Amino acid sequence: MPRSGAEARRRLQQAALELYRERGYDRTTTAEIAARAGVNERTFFRHFPDKREVLFDSEADLRDALVRAVAEAPEGLRPLDVLLRAFRMAGRILEENRPFTEPRLAIIAVTPALRERDTAKAALLVEALTEALRRRGVPARLAGLAAQTGWGTFHHAAQAWIDDPSQDLQTHLLRAFDDLRELSGAPRPAPARAQTRAETER
Amino acid sequence: MPRSGAEARRRLQQAALELYRERGYDRTTTAEIAARAGVNERTFFRHFPDKREVLFDSEADLRDALVRAVAEAPEGLRPLDVLLRAFRMAGRILEENRPFTEPRLAIIAVTPALRERDTAKAALLVEALTEALRRRGVPARLAGLAAQTGWGTFHHAAQAWIDDPSQDLQTHLLRAFDDLRELSGAPRPAPARAQTRAETER
Repeated sequence: MPRSGAEARRRLQQAALELYRERGYDRTTTAEIAARAGVNERTFFRHFPDKREVLFDSEADLRDALVRAVAEAPEGLRPLDVLLRAFRMAGRILEENRPFTEPRLAIIAVTPALRERDTAKAALLVEALTEALRRRGVPARLAGLAAQTGWGTFHHAAQAWIDDPSQDLQTHLLRAFDDLRELSGAPRPAPARAQTRAETER
Repeated sequence: MPRSGAEARRRLQQAALELYRERGYDRTTTAEIAARAGVNERTFFRHFPDKREVLFDSEADLRDALVRAVAEAPEGLRPLDVLLRAFRMAGRILEENRPFTEPRLAIIAVTPALRERDTAKAALLVEALTEALRRRGVPARLAGLAAQTGWGTFHHAAQAWIDDPSQDLQTHLLRAFDDLRELSGAPRPAPARAQTRAETER
């Protein structure tokens, strides 16, 4: 039996992830997750309202960390560079947790019920980022668009990282934001990437 | 009693929309929707699998129309301009159906169950647009990013149009794509908007 609540929580997440991989999300019950984690089903429901939420536990933490990073970014950075800086920080957390992050994203991608929950969480995150940019003085219209397209670009980079782990998430992130500039017709001189890296690491 | 299947379908959609506005999505039953439309509940289920889908009927049509518009865009247009052109065409359909479009978007925005479905549909649409851009020869990496950020920009413009109907959706769309260029650091000379308009109307 796990000794602490935090330990039970972590074991439940790990057990859920394993079972969703082995037999699929739809064919896994909360009772089975609890059994694999060595706790009873009541303990499961003390920690999570349903078998979807068990994979979205860290979402609120991620949101708080991103909002804080936006607030603390140096003045004068452009909105998308503020966001890139925040996403790079979030990316480091995802990379450290790769053993959990990667199968989690892979399972979400193939499970409609989880995709729906994931996209709903993403909408909340975009709202929080919009609000954080507005508090920095970014006009409302640009803040909303920057948050939406910035998040889309982050999501795209995270997927590219899952598909091609030979390069780290930071590299995929920088490339995706460079690609976004290129798509929008902005010049992309040779030193642009280095400059972005320096700016966002300030 | 409605005479044709298409007429019953349209009446069910209208009835659902009215009831969701009057008493909220959660407190409306399929039996009530059927009664308001003047049909029985079995007819409801002949047309729609559940009370969510009744608002997403035209989604597949929209997807097909967008994919076709991407395929038929003049050669040489940049990916985001190809998408802007397709969204402007889709925008005209939304504007013609504004009496249905506007309350529909407003109800989705405040109903978690509908938002989840909406975002799941959006993910399918982004995949379809990615594939359509790839068939035009856009490299895979750029195609996915263009589809994702282009869709985000369209979504943003549609929301701005709902919030501020004093300007039409076309105006909001052009402004949102101009804003995206500005956010990405692209120059925005005075005649840029006119040029975009001409390009995308070719």
